[in-house]
Amino acid sequence: MPAISIKGLTMPESPIRKLVPFAEGAKAKGREVYHLNIGQPDIETPPAAFDAIKNSSLKVLEYSHSAGFPSYRLGLVDYYAKVGIDITEDDLIVTTGGSEAILFALNSIADPDDEIIIPEPFYANYNGFGISAGVSVVPVTSRLVDEFALPPIADFESLITDRTKAIMICNPGNPTGYLYTREELEQLKELALKHDLYLIADEVYREFAYDDAEHISILSLDGLEEHAIVIDSVSKRYSMCGARIGAIVSRNKQVMATAMKFAQARLSPPTLAQIASEAALTTGPEYFTNVREEYVKRRDILVDGLNSIEGVYCPKPKGAFYAVASLPVDSAERFAQWLLSTFEKDGHTVMIAPAEGFYATPGMGLNQVRLAYVLNQDALKASVEIIREALREYPGSLLHE
Amino acid sequence: MPAISIKGLTMPESPIRKLVPFAEGAKAKGREVYHLNIGQPDIETPPAAFDAIKNSSLKVLEYSHSAGFPSYRLGLVDYYAKVGIDITEDDLIVTTGGSEAILFALNSIADPDDEIIIPEPFYANYNGFGISAGVSVVPVTSRLVDEFALPPIADFESLITDRTKAIMICNPGNPTGYLYTREELEQLKELALKHDLYLIADEVYREFAYDDAEHISILSLDGLEEHAIVIDSVSKRYSMCGARIGAIVSRNKQVMATAMKFAQARLSPPTLAQIASEAALTTGPEYFTNVREEYVKRRDILVDGLNSIEGVYCPKPKGAFYAVASLPVDSAERFAQWLLSTFEKDGHTVMIAPAEGFYATPGMGLNQVRLAYVLNQDALKASVEIIREALREYPGSLLHE
Ligand SMILES: Cc1ncc(COP(=O)(O)O)c(C=O)c1O
Ligand SMILES: Cc1ncc(COP(=O)(O)O)c(C=O)c1O
Repeated sequence: MPAISIKGLTMPESPIRKLVPFAEGAKAKGREVYHLNIGQPDIETPPAAFDAIKNSSLKVLEYSHSAGFPSYRLGLVDYYAKVGIDITEDDLIVTTGGSEAILFALNSIADPDDEIIIPEPFYANYNGFGISAGVSVVPVTSRLVDEFALPPIADFESLITDRTKAIMICNPGNPTGYLYTREELEQLKELALKHDLYLIADEVYREFAYDDAEHISILSLDGLEEHAIVIDSVSKRYSMCGARIGAIVSRNKQVMATAMKFAQARLSPPTLAQIASEAALTTGPEYFTNVREEYVKRRDILVDGLNSIEGVYCPKPKGAFYAVASLPVDSAERFAQWLLSTFEKDGHTVMIAPAEGFYATPGMGLNQVRLAYVLNQDALKASVEIIREALREYPGSLLHE
Repeated sequence: MPAISIKGLTMPESPIRKLVPFAEGAKAKGREVYHLNIGQPDIETPPAAFDAIKNSSLKVLEYSHSAGFPSYRLGLVDYYAKVGIDITEDDLIVTTGGSEAILFALNSIADPDDEIIIPEPFYANYNGFGISAGVSVVPVTSRLVDEFALPPIADFESLITDRTKAIMICNPGNPTGYLYTREELEQLKELALKHDLYLIADEVYREFAYDDAEHISILSLDGLEEHAIVIDSVSKRYSMCGARIGAIVSRNKQVMATAMKFAQARLSPPTLAQIASEAALTTGPEYFTNVREEYVKRRDILVDGLNSIEGVYCPKPKGAFYAVASLPVDSAERFAQWLLSTFEKDGHTVMIAPAEGFYATPGMGLNQVRLAYVLNQDALKASVEIIREALREYPGSLLHE
């Protein structure tokens, strides 16, 4: 039998993969599972998106332009103007989700054995895209005790080698929910310029900034035009994860011309979903105001609830819809399994993601979990109570000591 | 300014890229251009595909399972059973077009500097996927004078090194239209088994087999279970190129488990397009009978027409909807440009793809072009007459000598 690739062997499984059989076990026992483990929002997609498809009179479902519909690209230029960013349609390519934008970015700027520095904990699939592109992900640790603020610039500098091609951030962050301040972004800008590195920012959660905190795009930082590459997506913005529409955005013409060659090889992003995404651009600001209000309530229920539990610490995130908490347990992984395999409260339990899989440094985050507040407020209240009671009963709880 | 990657620098542009400005020039002059250069069929998508989306009552456009909807995967198992291939839903993963299936296949079985042997001329984007995956594409030349039949197995064997991981074929072929015979496929099977190599077959044109010739899938070759990987797609089958739905199919469990990790990293294939693709599975055999009849007529008009032109030779393909012809010209590239920039007949001209970009060996195919017969019969008749007249007038025509 022929071998599979080393790439394939080193490709990580999803951080919750090992939990899936336990979740199935819980369901088999008739337990209802609150899924705090995934980033699939329950918010309704703007109806305009579905309507546009229902009203379309296509007869042949054709490829689109490899860079996306010209009309949609112009629409995105408008969208960017509204969030205060001045770009042209040549500065963006429509991709198949933000996922593909990440792959295009890495492929365009890095070769096998090149390195990209990313603050950890980070979106676990960055590892997978790194392996696909043959690029090494070098973690710089951000700490829960610092509420996951930007690590000191000296920590980045100590990791820069002649193979370093970029710094990559996620802002606001998955899994941390951390929203970078202007000062932090300016520091990153100076660092990128000093070492002539790309700064890649995954801004797919841009709209999800809370408590009057402002999201600052790296595209708005003066002087970073040739160094800034943004990853964008409609997945979370309009609760359209299944569309698979994103974008890579940069004013660096060489980067865009290169990304375009990768875009041409895969022919085009999905046509139907572009129709839906273009229509979703008409979504008014009140939609986001409502969504933000809802997420703030959910966040407060979840995070305040968790912090009211003995031994639990969860910094309150200002963005996205995730939080990372440390738990008073021997192992977050075992606790997450036990919640599914053994525990129940009124027929319910919760599924949470062990944070270990979001760290690249072995041994980090072993007592941490990521929780997504994508469920309704009642479910979140119930989830907090489940975790509270479970931590009392869990045999590996450190509260017993 | 930071550098772009070597990958990006070596990434080829599309074979017709250089012609695009000439085509725009022709249109600016008010000329109508018959596009024989692209593989976008004009055949209508089965209405059931659009209807399914119009009738869906989704409220949230969610991610699907990373391997695709379970119901769609079961539907595909059924589809395969109907074409005589016995697989289970675990033997396939739904991908974002056949394009993504190619990338998953390469990433799963090959590492940087590994080699894949492919008969040339081949679908030009294999180069791009090879570069994305860091894999070297090694061409073995098939010849127009042999009607692009499988090159001698000795030619393959002389190219096999300890870095060779797979042989990849396209059957029926783009750009050649060549349909491999059972004997040829058996030879490839023996070769794959002897050297323990994967055999990857891109079968996205499976339904397009003409003149009672039978398409033989490598999935139906006994003994090749662990070595066969098939690339599939709805793009051409149902004229749904814009759906971006394909599949990677293999009975090799390790390959599928590995491909699944790449699939998980990019989360899911497009949801709306899966709804459409699942509905398209209800398309009856009469659809394909009609489509095949139409393509046979078109092929005959184009290929017989071309062969009636002095100095032109075009083997008659038994599959897909492309043909490669040799022209009596100094350079097919210059002739294609001249057709767009200078020539016209009754206000019309044609755009054809120089075949050079489909060869990996430098200097091959310089007097060849690829023509796609995806236009209606009248347009094809007119196109043949345009080419006939153009070859008389073209300054670089060898007919003048
Ligand atoms: C930080 C981050 N980036 C990118 C993505 C990819 O999303 P998509 O490909 O759906 O745009 C996700 C999805 O969860 C994410 O959390
Ligand atoms: C031979 C071949 N393989 C694969 C593809 C990719 O098609 P898709 O990604 O639309 O399935 C094409 C498209 O033209 C093709 O001709």
